[in-house]
Amino acid sequence: MEIHKVELPPQRSTFHKLKQRLSEIFFPDDPFYPFKNQTFFTKFILGLQYLFPIFQWGPQYNLRLLRSDLISGLTITSLAIPQGISYAKLANLPPIIGLYSSFVPPLIYSMFGSSKHLCVGPVSIASMIMGSMLSESVSFTQQPTLYLKLAFTATFFAGLFQASLGIFRLGFIIDFLSKATLIGFMAGAAVIVSLQQLKSLLGIVHFTNKMQIVPVLISVFKQKNEWSWQTVLLGFFLLVFLLTTRYISLKKPKLFWVSAAAPLTSVILSTILVFLLRNKTNAIAVIGALPKGINPPSANLLYFSGPFLTLAIKVGLIIGILSLTEGIAVGRTFAALHNDQIDGNKEMIAIGVMNIAGSCSSCFVTSGSFSRSAVNYNAGGKSAVSNIVMSAAVVVTLLLLMPLFHYTPNAVLGAIIITAVIGLIDYQAVFKLWKVDKLDCLACLCSFFGVLFISVPVGLSIAVGISVFKILLHVSRPNTLVLGNIPGTNIFHNVNQYKEALRIPSFLILGIESPIYFANSNYLQERILRFIREEEEHIIANNGSTLKCIILDMTAVTAIDTSGLDTLCELRKTLEKRSLKLVLANPVGNVLEKLHQSKNLDNFGLRGVYLTVGEAVTDISSSWKPQP
Amino acid sequence: MEIHKVELPPQRSTFHKLKQRLSEIFFPDDPFYPFKNQTFFTKFILGLQYLFPIFQWGPQYNLRLLRSDLISGLTITSLAIPQGISYAKLANLPPIIGLYSSFVPPLIYSMFGSSKHLCVGPVSIASMIMGSMLSESVSFTQQPTLYLKLAFTATFFAGLFQASLGIFRLGFIIDFLSKATLIGFMAGAAVIVSLQQLKSLLGIVHFTNKMQIVPVLISVFKQKNEWSWQTVLLGFFLLVFLLTTRYISLKKPKLFWVSAAAPLTSVILSTILVFLLRNKTNAIAVIGALPKGINPPSANLLYFSGPFLTLAIKVGLIIGILSLTEGIAVGRTFAALHNDQIDGNKEMIAIGVMNIAGSCSSCFVTSGSFSRSAVNYNAGGKSAVSNIVMSAAVVVTLLLLMPLFHYTPNAVLGAIIITAVIGLIDYQAVFKLWKVDKLDCLACLCSFFGVLFISVPVGLSIAVGISVFKILLHVSRPNTLVLGNIPGTNIFHNVNQYKEALRIPSFLILGIESPIYFANSNYLQERILRFIREEEEHIIANNGSTLKCIILDMTAVTAIDTSGLDTLCELRKTLEKRSLKLVLANPVGNVLEKLHQSKNLDNFGLRGVYLTVGEAVTDISSSWKPQP
Repeated sequence: MEIHKVELPPQRSTFHKLKQRLSEIFFPDDPFYPFKNQTFFTKFILGLQYLFPIFQWGPQYNLRLLRSDLISGLTITSLAIPQGISYAKLANLPPIIGLYSSFVPPLIYSMFGSSKHLCVGPVSIASMIMGSMLSESVSFTQQPTLYLKLAFTATFFAGLFQASLGIFRLGFIIDFLSKATLIGFMAGAAVIVSLQQLKSLLGIVHFTNKMQIVPVLISVFKQKNEWSWQTVLLGFFLLVFLLTTRYISLKKPKLFWVSAAAPLTSVILSTILVFLLRNKTNAIAVIGALPKGINPPSANLLYFSGPFLTLAIKVGLIIGILSLTEGIAVGRTFAALHNDQIDGNKEMIAIGVMNIAGSCSSCFVTSGSFSRSAVNYNAGGKSAVSNIVMSAAVVVTLLLLMPLFHYTPNAVLGAIIITAVIGLIDYQAVFKLWKVDKLDCLACLCSFFGVLFISVPVGLSIAVGISVFKILLHVSRPNTLVLGNIPGTNIFHNVNQYKEALRIPSFLILGIESPIYFANSNYLQERILRFIREEEEHIIANNGSTLKCIILDMTAVTAIDTSGLDTLCELRKTLEKRSLKLVLANPVGNVLEKLHQSKNLDNFGLRGVYLTVGEAVTDISSSWKPQP
Repeated sequence: MEIHKVELPPQRSTFHKLKQRLSEIFFPDDPFYPFKNQTFFTKFILGLQYLFPIFQWGPQYNLRLLRSDLISGLTITSLAIPQGISYAKLANLPPIIGLYSSFVPPLIYSMFGSSKHLCVGPVSIASMIMGSMLSESVSFTQQPTLYLKLAFTATFFAGLFQASLGIFRLGFIIDFLSKATLIGFMAGAAVIVSLQQLKSLLGIVHFTNKMQIVPVLISVFKQKNEWSWQTVLLGFFLLVFLLTTRYISLKKPKLFWVSAAAPLTSVILSTILVFLLRNKTNAIAVIGALPKGINPPSANLLYFSGPFLTLAIKVGLIIGILSLTEGIAVGRTFAALHNDQIDGNKEMIAIGVMNIAGSCSSCFVTSGSFSRSAVNYNAGGKSAVSNIVMSAAVVVTLLLLMPLFHYTPNAVLGAIIITAVIGLIDYQAVFKLWKVDKLDCLACLCSFFGVLFISVPVGLSIAVGISVFKILLHVSRPNTLVLGNIPGTNIFHNVNQYKEALRIPSFLILGIESPIYFANSNYLQERILRFIREEEEHIIANNGSTLKCIILDMTAVTAIDTSGLDTLCELRKTLEKRSLKLVLANPVGNVLEKLHQSKNLDNFGLRGVYLTVGEAVTDISSSWKPQP
């Protein structure tokens, strides 16, 4: 059998390598490929379409599409209005801000966004975190203007952060929030949000603005005297109603409209009820008078200097990254249903611009909402036009229907929020995590309890820390396998996994399953020497033929650094002293390159590096033949 | 050709897996294997020998060994005394502390340490960092007692930290200080240390206690008026002398004793000179009177409460980890020369205990010194006894010879320090780094300039940050290769690296060179889809046979997490919709396990997972045959 020479990859200049590496890091999706060899005009059009996808789908837009978009648009409005008001309250903001935020951002997004089904507006998690983090240092009831200022400023920084992530193509940063982490985080947030709603469901007046579970529970039960049975009754009834409708829609996706219409229905019914009872009792807290008219400009309210600037920036960063993660995830989900992809970085720019614009027009942080996007998709929404329809409908509400909300009880908002966030508690996913990957499950639980007992930022950072630690652990303690030959083939495989795989006498074949880095080079060296020791003991025990050659299968060694190179070199020397031959099999391109550059390759010599384990074994054992 | 079934690894319980994983993490060197099936007594003896290696080599010790140890011991003493005094000054401590630290720690180490050639005592880097970090908040001249207290306390915490790293078998933590990082760091420290010595070499009285290069240079040239030509003359002469001897020994390793004897010689000569000139001039600063007698106890000086405790702990951590890194590195180097290994964790315990004991007997931080160990090795030191000899000689000095050092000029200490640290500036290594690994080189330069211009901790953390970032980058942007078949074989290899490798019509074979994690799953999905797009475009361009099947070579995918599993599943669905078949080749054990646990394996089905790319190709293309 002929032996194939191991070849170095073609020579490339440092600059060329760097260029390629950077383009892999920042432009993995090769966004410029449609631009290749086009006329200037086409390029311009393409560029315009890249920035404003509306120019892409706009021209093909037709009446048939418009019809379905109208229907879906109106459907999501019925959801967007009550949710908008509720989420605004969740952020401790006046309800009207929630409606403002369902008007401007959707318009902006419909121009910049590339997702067909994403329905943008206020989202629960971001609203709740903004509310909690701001309330911990500023109280809305005492300093409403300052609080508003901070809310808009945080929104502004969130947008700035999101847009710049997209522009500098750093989208991959959000990938470091692993799914496991998010499951735990969302569940934790959902639990706290739901508990906080007990305020409005029980009609409690004095409530903590802390976000840990302990103080929340305490203030629920300490204010027993403030509970009003009317509110409790109403709230409980509404909650049951909403949860039932949700359950129905979950069971029968065809009946999605049941849960879609439920919130508005319950708002209308409860409002009417309270209106009729207005002279009998005032025990049920209501939203109260809301100003008419559309978004006032708020650019003048942005807060760029003063003691709370750092707070605003911090809040901006956190809600920015979280709302981004949610938005992108939702976008990807619905894109996948039509098996097309969305360009993460592009979406980030869209969401960022939307929030910057929002912060200047009295809107708080917005993103793609899962619940509304799902309704949008089910109601047959075909394009971003459904967002435009929605914001049009919201404008009408703002201009004409505001007085109707005067008697809307807070209890219904609480019920709506609970129904919305309850879906975020995905315990089945946790079971699955536990079954498949214990460390992922740990990360998930940590973020859950971190959020519940300590705080949102801490919970998040713990979880991210664990995720990163997991990577580092995998790198610093890689697997090393003993390989054996599967009879009648050239295939060499893990002897533990394949019972039929046979060890080859006087060879020790080790597979290294990781890059060789400074972080694991010492470990690998010691581990390999231990393998050899154990092998030799084993040989002596059942007097087999003496060990002569160690083959390292480098297939999975996808990178090597200077420490790694030194380790290999040292290992070779140590083994030589013990008259053992060290051979490398199938080193990948860049590893081979580095071995060559560091002059290590020459030390291994002609019979030191082979293309496959099989060839190494055949060649070396044949070279032994002549000897007695 | 027969197709081999892909087998799951044997079932193991979660507990068993966890046990194995943990033992790989904490006991990779399997320290207990000599204890296996031994009598209790043997176990006891072995345990004793494990804790106190002296019981291991003690019994075999003989006169011949003693002779060589005596010679080497005395040789290193001649180096240890001047270096001890100098390094104490480097830490802004009274010179006598340097001698104290060359007495107790070596004794302790000779009992606990497992290295034959390691010579312990004060070391330049750690002393310099301790001096700088402490001096920035406490000045020795103003508060000598507090400064002493902090120095001993820092030493104590350093020892505690080192010992606990060893006991809890977390030795691998120091591996995260990559070699590249250390090269840059050491060089930076060496430059600053050398510049600081200009104080004593030029005879400057008022000198900054800052550690950045700028203030140091400023105070060198601002105090021109304080320069004394006699000191400059003497210092310059001594420096030239020492550097020459160092150069000679470097050229001719046989003449190692030249550089070994030089420091003491220069101390003696310069002292005599200054003694003779004592009535002519007092322009040359001298050490002055030193107390006689051996180490006073200092446990009572340890400082466990008060404003500076955090400082002491911080300093302790940093000098602890740095002296540890140096000590272990030196130990490994000399162990490798005799191709035996040293047990990192054991060494850490030894060094830790040595420092804890030292902190209670007026010693400051000590570790294995490279220069002295080298001399020890060259002078034929055979065991830790040479350390005992050294400390005995130091005791004699402490008891009788202290008055002789009264007229030793500070200039000679400065010259000795410069000669000692100059070797740490390894510019060739930097060139090599640049040639082999640009990112390593960047880390190196960053730590160099970080130390030079900002501060030691910052420089270090930047460098570690870059090293870790490098790992994460490699994980979040892994290589993906197109594989081709090498004619006449079953070998599939990177088509860019192997020109003869041929693509197989209507197959696209991709090699993924990394674990599939949350950090890269999105990237990989997009990248693979892009590969497919490009392939299809390429096919259309030169109307080849349509693409039917994508094979992922999973050999290098050494791990997968839940996000990765979802990605694979999604990818399969997406491709199915486009009537493309997705096939996995050679998934490793734990990946296969996870695929199985997450029910993904069943989705891939019988003809979805193969043992090798070759078998996949043969089987699938044969399955196409019947179709027209």
